[in-house]
Amino acid sequence: MSEPLMPQHDPPIALTMGDPAGIGPEITLKCWLQRNQATCPPFLFLGSAELLETCARSLEVEVPIHRLQEPVQARDVFPDALPVLDLPLPAPCRPGVPDSRNAPMVIRSIDLAYDLVRTGQASALVTNPIHKNSLYSSGFSQPGHTEYLAQLCGLDFRPVMMLASERLRVVPVTVHVPLREIPSRLTREGIVHAAEITYLALQRDFDIPAPRLAMAGLNPHAGEAGSMGREEIDLLLPAVRDLQAKGMPIDEPRAADSLFHETARGRYDAVLCMYHDQALIPIKTLDFDKAVNVTLGLPVVRTSPDHGTAFNIAGQNQANPSSLRAALDLAARMARARTADIHSS
Amino acid sequence: MSEPLMPQHDPPIALTMGDPAGIGPEITLKCWLQRNQATCPPFLFLGSAELLETCARSLEVEVPIHRLQEPVQARDVFPDALPVLDLPLPAPCRPGVPDSRNAPMVIRSIDLAYDLVRTGQASALVTNPIHKNSLYSSGFSQPGHTEYLAQLCGLDFRPVMMLASERLRVVPVTVHVPLREIPSRLTREGIVHAAEITYLALQRDFDIPAPRLAMAGLNPHAGEAGSMGREEIDLLLPAVRDLQAKGMPIDEPRAADSLFHETARGRYDAVLCMYHDQALIPIKTLDFDKAVNVTLGLPVVRTSPDHGTAFNIAGQNQANPSSLRAALDLAARMARARTADIHSS
Repeated sequence: MSEPLMPQHDPPIALTMGDPAGIGPEITLKCWLQRNQATCPPFLFLGSAELLETCARSLEVEVPIHRLQEPVQARDVFPDALPVLDLPLPAPCRPGVPDSRNAPMVIRSIDLAYDLVRTGQASALVTNPIHKNSLYSSGFSQPGHTEYLAQLCGLDFRPVMMLASERLRVVPVTVHVPLREIPSRLTREGIVHAAEITYLALQRDFDIPAPRLAMAGLNPHAGEAGSMGREEIDLLLPAVRDLQAKGMPIDEPRAADSLFHETARGRYDAVLCMYHDQALIPIKTLDFDKAVNVTLGLPVVRTSPDHGTAFNIAGQNQANPSSLRAALDLAARMARARTADIHSS
Repeated sequence: MSEPLMPQHDPPIALTMGDPAGIGPEITLKCWLQRNQATCPPFLFLGSAELLETCARSLEVEVPIHRLQEPVQARDVFPDALPVLDLPLPAPCRPGVPDSRNAPMVIRSIDLAYDLVRTGQASALVTNPIHKNSLYSSGFSQPGHTEYLAQLCGLDFRPVMMLASERLRVVPVTVHVPLREIPSRLTREGIVHAAEITYLALQRDFDIPAPRLAMAGLNPHAGEAGSMGREEIDLLLPAVRDLQAKGMPIDEPRAADSLFHETARGRYDAVLCMYHDQALIPIKTLDFDKAVNVTLGLPVVRTSPDHGTAFNIAGQNQANPSSLRAALDLAARMARARTADIHSS
């Protein structure tokens, strides 16, 4: 076995601005202040340098901001200053009050981050929260970050959302769907697609050669042999058989309430859940502040904190940087796994 | 304030036999073996003494069985032997294989336990798991223990199920309902009823003078102002207003995924959930082995372990007694709270 050709220094992570009126600037500063903790990977911020300086003054924290000429400088700068590729804002920013005049710069930040990763100048993409309504007036036509990135990447399939923490990984097959519409939105193909993307990502990005997937039933007690709902028999089991036929080991659907305790969690690497709350209740019960949103299936590594812009607390020094910090850490680990994978294959 | 007239010794707990072919006998013996741990309350078993003796031999544990003449002896007997009001079985019992010939005795055990509590000879009723299909042939016409007890008690309203552990109390408004039928089964009256019974039980049985109730939304993000489902606006909020008008403080429905982490749990005494998995996922994620099923609204205190007969492991010395043990502990605390309540009012 030859020594893997690991780069001596991984490129930094590209961190987008997100909505400048949200908590993004505050949690970005707070993550940089944690840089001396062993695992915090170097990142560069793609957004307004002035925004960060104003935010640092209002939080009364000492964060030198370094305006980069070239992204490649970020790694050397990072120990002493927060490296920024400056994207000045067209309109002044008031915390908590989104302003659509700044929307083009929010989008520009995402585009630029993607370019940096695509060209190898950044190792992964981490996105601060955006406020979609403020972006629509600037021609943003996607429901969110994930779909926008899929479009940028020229993907011809739907990426898959995973929520990951130290203790659990969950993949909701349907996401922002009213409960009464879940059964009609679930399809055998959709379940198989989510499972396949998850399986491949566990191998490539999480360094798990033989991933173990679990599947949660839709109904209480996983339908109890059809007496409490038929979807397990009519939809989920056929999807399980499709996956098994493709060589992906996955068991029949389990009662969702018995899947997430400590002993059960030792039996799989990720759980395929049928809907939003089935996935998010257990992970947020266990790791509320440290769950990370991961987009699976993209050609670039992308994670984000599992919360929104939080306009209601923006500018008040109340924002918790734990989820962004966990998103940076996980992005670095995933990028490293991909690099190792490329060099060893 | 006068000294409450507490009885020097609370009466013992009446523990039913449950299905003799399930894990009931095994977990009963295991709980008795824990009797010297400070909090294990004395109980008497209403069922076959021979069944327990056979089970003890097969588990190779030393548990003297004492056949009682009168229930009142149970407390004196308990330190040295497991007290049993003997109900001999008509048919031999094979672990894992339910036999409907024994069904009349399973039902008799529940009837007798109820009588003991009603007449003050027992302080509370704890039920071992039954297998409903085996009982139907003996004229059992209720969907489960809860409805059967409601009938025994002559209740003219539906009791309410709570799952309780040290860290969380949840009340599912709908229970064994296929997911697609949940929206049509939820009614404003049903939500209000469950909340009222819960509120009163928290006061009377859990000794919480001013209970704080939380309500989980049905849809992801609690519907996000109607954009992801209307039930919060059309059904849940009106129920909240009904409850507030009756003087029961309860906030508007919250996003279910943000209700169960440690900080959130400090803000309420119980959560009203809209469906089975919404309630059971968080409590079983946190306290899988120690969740207790509590029936609220009955004139008697009744708890049970939060698992079934587990025929698949019966007779194999694999059954975990933690949930039955927690059910006994909680029943004793609830009975004590009721007694104190009666004597102080």
